[in-house]
Amino acid sequence: MAKLVVLYKTPADKAAFDKHYFETHIPLAKKIPGLTSYEVSKGAVGSPGGESGIHLVALLEFESFAALRSGLGSPEAGAAVADVPNFASGGADILMFDTIEV
Amino acid sequence: MAKLVVLYKTPADKAAFDKHYFETHIPLAKKIPGLTSYEVSKGAVGSPGGESGIHLVALLEFESFAALRSGLGSPEAGAAVADVPNFASGGADILMFDTIEV
Repeated sequence: MAKLVVLYKTPADKAAFDKHYFETHIPLAKKIPGLTSYEVSKGAVGSPGGESGIHLVALLEFESFAALRSGLGSPEAGAAVADVPNFASGGADILMFDTIEV
Repeated sequence: MAKLVVLYKTPADKAAFDKHYFETHIPLAKKIPGLTSYEVSKGAVGSPGGESGIHLVALLEFESFAALRSGLGSPEAGAAVADVPNFASGGADILMFDTIEV
């Protein structure tokens, strides 16, 4: 399996972020070819020290890193990426990696 | 479901990190009560800009946030946490959250 993890930093307007993310961004991102699972954080993203500075975490799964790369090269992914500046006013960090169950 | 995500920043000695993580830390962390799935990144952790600064990502899953909290309060989790300074010379960010499939 391979994962794309998006760490959305706390935006200026959390309610506007959530509305746009759930109503507009998820439907766009779900169209990315090869996506096999899509989970998002629900409620606060905590850290051992308290506030994490992260508002929402998205975990997108693909069968393989090749499938992830191919999916990200698609027009559907292009549309999802182009939508990010419309709501992610706090910025976002994106990580991509192959995974193994241990 | 609930997830504990650990983002290990690039350590001074990657080979030493990997040896300790796979031989010592994983066996300790697998003893945490309530853990239902444990995935780690395999190979490079990339980002759209290239280097992510992250050496390894660990994704630990629990049935619920209550189970995660309970697991983290266990002596087994205490032993795993106490082991982190033995290998994570670059530091680590830890995130904890409930998840929903979308």
